Amino acid sequence: MLDPKQLEALSAVVDSGGFDKAARKLFLTQSAISQRIRQLEEHLGQPVLTRTSPPAPTTAGRLLLQHFRQLSLMEGELLNTLLPDGEQSDFTTLAVGVNADSLATWFLPAVQELMQRRRLLFDVMMDDQDYTHELMRSGHVAGCIGTRDTPIQGGECHFLGCMRYLCLATPDFAARYFADGFTHAALAQAPAIIFSGKDDLHSQFLRQVAGYDGSTPHITLPTPQGFVQATRLGLAYSLLPELMIDDDLESGRLLDLLPGQYVDLPLYWHHWRVESSLAGDLSTALLGWARQVLRQQLPER
Amino acid sequence: MLDPKQLEALSAVVDSGGFDKAARKLFLTQSAISQRIRQLEEHLGQPVLTRTSPPAPTTAGRLLLQHFRQLSLMEGELLNTLLPDGEQSDFTTLAVGVNADSLATWFLPAVQELMQRRRLLFDVMMDDQDYTHELMRSGHVAGCIGTRDTPIQGGECHFLGCMRYLCLATPDFAARYFADGFTHAALAQAPAIIFSGKDDLHSQFLRQVAGYDGSTPHITLPTPQGFVQATRLGLAYSLLPELMIDDDLESGRLLDLLPGQYVDLPLYWHHWRVESSLAGDLSTALLGWARQVLRQQLPER
Repeated sequence: MLDPKQLEALSAVVDSGGFDKAARKLFLTQSAISQRIRQLEEHLGQPVLTRTSPPAPTTAGRLLLQHFRQLSLMEGELLNTLLPDGEQSDFTTLAVGVNADSLATWFLPAVQELMQRRRLLFDVMMDDQDYTHELMRSGHVAGCIGTRDTPIQGGECHFLGCMRYLCLATPDFAARYFADGFTHAALAQAPAIIFSGKDDLHSQFLRQVAGYDGSTPHITLPTPQGFVQATRLGLAYSLLPELMIDDDLESGRLLDLLPGQYVDLPLYWHHWRVESSLAGDLSTALLGWARQVLRQQLPER
Repeated sequence: MLDPKQLEALSAVVDSGGFDKAARKLFLTQSAISQRIRQLEEHLGQPVLTRTSPPAPTTAGRLLLQHFRQLSLMEGELLNTLLPDGEQSDFTTLAVGVNADSLATWFLPAVQELMQRRRLLFDVMMDDQDYTHELMRSGHVAGCIGTRDTPIQGGECHFLGCMRYLCLATPDFAARYFADGFTHAALAQAPAIIFSGKDDLHSQFLRQVAGYDGSTPHITLPTPQGFVQATRLGLAYSLLPELMIDDDLESGRLLDLLPGQYVDLPLYWHHWRVESSLAGDLSTALLGWARQVLRQQLPER
């Protein structure tokens, strides 16, 4: 059997980003952490971590992390079941990958009741919606919300619904850049907002609605709330989730640049195929809530 | 002289996270990108990128990126000066590292006027406040907002002010976990929120106000808005920037668990020591705005 203390050390080093921080997290000395990692590597006959700063798991390390997280989850549930009812049991922590726009809107309300009922905590990792499944494949998380529509190996996936994005700007911005419409000349001049270098929602949208394939000046902002704030300040136009705009359209603070045109982005919930009642409850909570807040029709191709 | 086309290819590969994406970004073929990187490496006699996925800059690569970003900035300004007034000049894009709580609150309003006046765009990278200067040192950004109080080599640093954090929870949460006060027993049971494995603001606070050095159950949430939302939902207590709580205290939605106790986190603006009027204007804008919204007294040690 693998020694769970060694796996715990590996997990702490990867999560905290260093041997010294892992030591502090586990209340051990740094040399105790190094020793556990070394023993694990000797046992397996291969490295589990790159000695970079921060250390990164090797392929073997990633598989071990995935295994350790499933193990922790199962053990947490077992203890919750075994402990007498009156006794305050420990919290269970589940690592999940959530796309930024879901985290900014519906994720926390969706899991609120379950977290309180099952004494559940989350270690939320955030990424672009097309990349959250990489967090799962790399063993960092037990489940993820993203755009991938097929299960990853060893996992299951469920359709949650579509998040709808509208193309918005302030009236001043629209008058300044789009007075002649959504033309190629305007798109080459008007600052847009993108989430990161990995984000191609905006360029896909321009290709789709305007056949525009050129470059566009842009602000890079790694938070959905930054998109909303920068758009409201008139610094750029952007695709904003309809769930994030309050009364901006009614109040006239923002204009829909292309009424009737939008992006419906299908989101999926991925989790490992593991028999765990907590994982099952989480799927139920997410799917139930998503049915209320996300659009349930898949967009036409 | 270094070939700027090669540097541009390096920058695109690092920013977009791959040779294929860099090719798309620069409207080149992937083999053209590979060739430019290879020529750069042959010219320097050493690798500039690790062939990992995503590729990361080597030490030499980082220095080149830093150089390239300063070069781009200076060239952008030069062109803005040289082009006739009537001609619509290109935007200048500046990469900056901003701590999450500043980005969530005062950063965008502080730069709004400057962005419009100087046709400036930002490539914002976000990190924990203790780590933004690493983005600068690694050559990813031209400036950063963080907690480091001494200039990094080749840079300057200016005190912006302190962000004040209050320790808040819903009345229900306070009654459930802190009915007997801010005791060690309560702290071992009550779920807190931390930003990431690198974030130790919360544990520092517990050490300082309660002499508590043990572990604490926690939700990991990588967005300041997630902190606010989870705290309002009663899922945890947390340290929230006073700039992010609306009327929560007045309305009784949230309670201050330790009235009169708080964390004042000093923030600094770091930038390269480079003669550029745009960089100077940015410093002026940030320092001027920060004087209005951040607390100007340094906390006692």
